[in-house]
Amino acid sequence: MGSIERIMAVADRVMETFNAGNQVIVVLSAMAGEKDRLISLAREVSPNPDPREMDVLTSTGEQVSIALLSITLQSRGYLAKSFTGSQVSVHTDSVHNKARIEKIDTQNIQQALDKGQIVVVAGFQGKDNEGDITTLGRGGSDTSAVALAAAMKADECRIYTDVDGVYTADPRIVPDARRMACISYEEMLEMASLGSKVLQIRSVEFANKYKVPLRVLSSFNPGDGTLIIDEDEEMEQAQISGIAHNRDEAKLTVVGVPDTPGIAFKILGPIAEANIEVDMIVQNVGADGTTDFTFTVHRNDYERAMEILKNTAKETNARDVNGDNKIAKLSIVGVGMRSHAGIASNMFKALADEGINIQMISTSEIKVSVVVDEKYLELGVRTLHASFGLEKDGFVE
Amino acid sequence: MGSIERIMAVADRVMETFNAGNQVIVVLSAMAGEKDRLISLAREVSPNPDPREMDVLTSTGEQVSIALLSITLQSRGYLAKSFTGSQVSVHTDSVHNKARIEKIDTQNIQQALDKGQIVVVAGFQGKDNEGDITTLGRGGSDTSAVALAAAMKADECRIYTDVDGVYTADPRIVPDARRMACISYEEMLEMASLGSKVLQIRSVEFANKYKVPLRVLSSFNPGDGTLIIDEDEEMEQAQISGIAHNRDEAKLTVVGVPDTPGIAFKILGPIAEANIEVDMIVQNVGADGTTDFTFTVHRNDYERAMEILKNTAKETNARDVNGDNKIAKLSIVGVGMRSHAGIASNMFKALADEGINIQMISTSEIKVSVVVDEKYLELGVRTLHASFGLEKDGFVE
Repeated sequence: MGSIERIMAVADRVMETFNAGNQVIVVLSAMAGEKDRLISLAREVSPNPDPREMDVLTSTGEQVSIALLSITLQSRGYLAKSFTGSQVSVHTDSVHNKARIEKIDTQNIQQALDKGQIVVVAGFQGKDNEGDITTLGRGGSDTSAVALAAAMKADECRIYTDVDGVYTADPRIVPDARRMACISYEEMLEMASLGSKVLQIRSVEFANKYKVPLRVLSSFNPGDGTLIIDEDEEMEQAQISGIAHNRDEAKLTVVGVPDTPGIAFKILGPIAEANIEVDMIVQNVGADGTTDFTFTVHRNDYERAMEILKNTAKETNARDVNGDNKIAKLSIVGVGMRSHAGIASNMFKALADEGINIQMISTSEIKVSVVVDEKYLELGVRTLHASFGLEKDGFVE
Repeated sequence: MGSIERIMAVADRVMETFNAGNQVIVVLSAMAGEKDRLISLAREVSPNPDPREMDVLTSTGEQVSIALLSITLQSRGYLAKSFTGSQVSVHTDSVHNKARIEKIDTQNIQQALDKGQIVVVAGFQGKDNEGDITTLGRGGSDTSAVALAAAMKADECRIYTDVDGVYTADPRIVPDARRMACISYEEMLEMASLGSKVLQIRSVEFANKYKVPLRVLSSFNPGDGTLIIDEDEEMEQAQISGIAHNRDEAKLTVVGVPDTPGIAFKILGPIAEANIEVDMIVQNVGADGTTDFTFTVHRNDYERAMEILKNTAKETNARDVNGDNKIAKLSIVGVGMRSHAGIASNMFKALADEGINIQMISTSEIKVSVVVDEKYLELGVRTLHASFGLEKDGFVE
C-alpha cells in the first residue's frame, strides 16, 4: 500500500472484482513509509520500546489505510465497511510484534458481505485473549489475507504487489524471463526462501496448509498474474520452473579441524546461541583425519559469526578460519525434478561451460542451489535460464 | 498534545504526580497537526467522507500518542499500559464524530492501577454497541478525562493546556491580570461560553454534573493552575471573578418591523432553520407601533444571516435591515453578583467614563455582557479589570 495514488489504484482493482459479481474482502497494509515513520517516533523516546506498545503504535498504519480505502470506495458509489483486526476479530497469541493467528471470527465480516458491502480489513494485526492489539510482524498483511481467505473459504486470495507475477528469473537480469501462469506452493516456497521476494514465506505456507489458491498480481498493471496452487499433473511436464538467486549470504570455513564425533555441533552450537541463522552446510573429510567445515550465514551476520568462529577454532585446534562475503547463491527450482534424472548435472555442466566455479552445493527434492563468486551472479542466472529453455513457451503460459 | 517534546513534558508531569504517591490515569489527545493531517488525507479521496470511517481514521491520532507516552514512561523505569477507547471500554452512542459517552467500564483500568501501572488512555474516542469506533468531536479529550475521573471517583482531574490557569482577564490584553487559584463550575461555564478558550464547555458541564474537581495547568511550566470546584462560601466574598471577551460575533438588526405577536419567531425561525446559532437578542418597542429587533450570530454566519434577514424583512414589511460585523462582547463574571446589587451599573459607568458606547446588553444570574464597537475591545477589558479591582489580591490567591 503506497500513497493516496496507490489507494486509488487498489480501489480500481476492488471495483473491477466486485463488478464481476464477486463478494470482496480487501486486506490492507500501511501506506508506504508510514511504518517507518511510526517506528522512528518510538525510537525518539526509547532505544528499546515495549513490544505491546509498539503494536498499539504501528497498528495505526493499517487503520489509516482501511478508513481511506473505505471512504474512496464509498465516494465512488460502493458500500464499504472497514474492520480493524480487533473488530474482525482476528485472534492471535500474545507474542507482540510477531504474533501468530489462532482463530478468525467470520460473523461480522459475513454480516457485512450479506448486506452487499465490500469488506476492508486491516492486515498485519489481531488481538490476543487480553484484548491487547497484536501485530504479525513485517509482511504479515499477506498472511492476514491468506488466513481470512481460508476462514471465509474464498475462491481465491489475490496479493497485489509491485510486480505483475512470479517470473522464471529476475527480469532485471534475464530480459527474456517469462511470467509463470501457474506454480505450485512447494516451488513458490523454494523460490521465496531462495531470494525471490514476491511473497512472504509464511503466507505461502499458510496457503499451502489450507489449500487457498493464491494469485500474485500488480496493483497498477492489468494482467492475470501468477496463480499458486497445489501441484497437479500438468506441472509435471516441466523440469524446471524458475531460477532464483540471492546475494544476501556470506560463507565461513573452518579449515583442518580434527574430525571427531560432535564436531559439527561444536562449531554450529555457538553460532546458534548467538541467534545467527545458518543456511547451507558442507563438510569434506580430508585424508589426514581433519575436515574442512563450511557454512553460510546472512551477510549482515558475517563479522559476528567470524568472531565466534575464531574462538571455536582455537578451542577445537583447527588449522585456520577463512570466509568470503562476496558470494552469490543460484538455484534451480521445479517439481519436475522428482521425475527427471540428471537435472543437477545439467546445471553443473552449463555453469562449467561458462567457466563458473562452484564453491558449494545443496539440494532438496525440488531444488538445487550452488554458491559461486558474486561476480558470476548475472552470467550464472542467464546461463541457467537459457540452458533449461525457460524463455520458451512451456506449460508456463 | 504537541510533538515529541510535548510527550516528554507530559511524562515529567505524570511522573511527578505518580511519585507524590498517587495512582495516575493519563488521558491524551493527538499530537499537534496529526488530526489535520488525517482529515486532509480523507479529503484527498472524498469531499464528503463517511462519519464512521472518519472515526476509524482520526482515532489513530490518540492511539499513536498513548503508545508513545507509555514507551516514554517505561524507558524511564515506570510501569505503564495504554488503552484505546475500545479497550477501556468507553461506551458511547453511535453519533459518529460527535458521540456522547454513555458508560465507562472501570475494570480493566482498575486492574492495571492495582498492579501499580500508570494507565494511559486515548481521549476523544470510544465504541458504540456495534463495536464501531466513535469519536467525541473536537475538544473531546477534556470530556474523556472528566468522564474517566467521574467513573473512577478520582480526587482531581487535571487538564494540561498551553496556559497555566484561568486568568482574571486575557493577560495579552491586561498585563496585570492574575491567575485565579479557584473558580466555580458556573463561572467557568460562563467564561468558556463568553470566549475564554481554556476549556471545552462540555467538559466543564460534565465536571459540574459529577462534581469532579477540575484543575487547569500548563504542560510546560510548574504551578498550581486554577482549581474549578463547586461554589463555596469563600467565593461569595468577591463580586467579580473575571473579565471575558470575544470578537467572534456580528450583529444584525431589523428596523421598524410591525410589532405584532409572534414577530420574534418570524425573524429568528428562518435563522434557526439554517442552523445558525443566535447568541444575544434585544428588542426595543418604538412609539409608532413598530419595533427594532437586534441579535448576534457568529461572525462566520454573518453574510448568510443577512441574506435570510433581507427576505424576512420583505415578508414582514420591515423598514430596513442593517448589521455590523466589527463588534466585540465584553463580560463580567462572578457568583458574587448574586449577593451584591449595583454591579451592572458600575460596569456601565466605568465604560461610559471612557467614552465607550454600549450597543447591546445581556445579563444572567452571574454575568453581564455588553456589545461595543470592536475598536474599544482592549480599552474596555482593561477598564473593567481595573474598575473591579481584579489586579489586587482578593480571594483569588
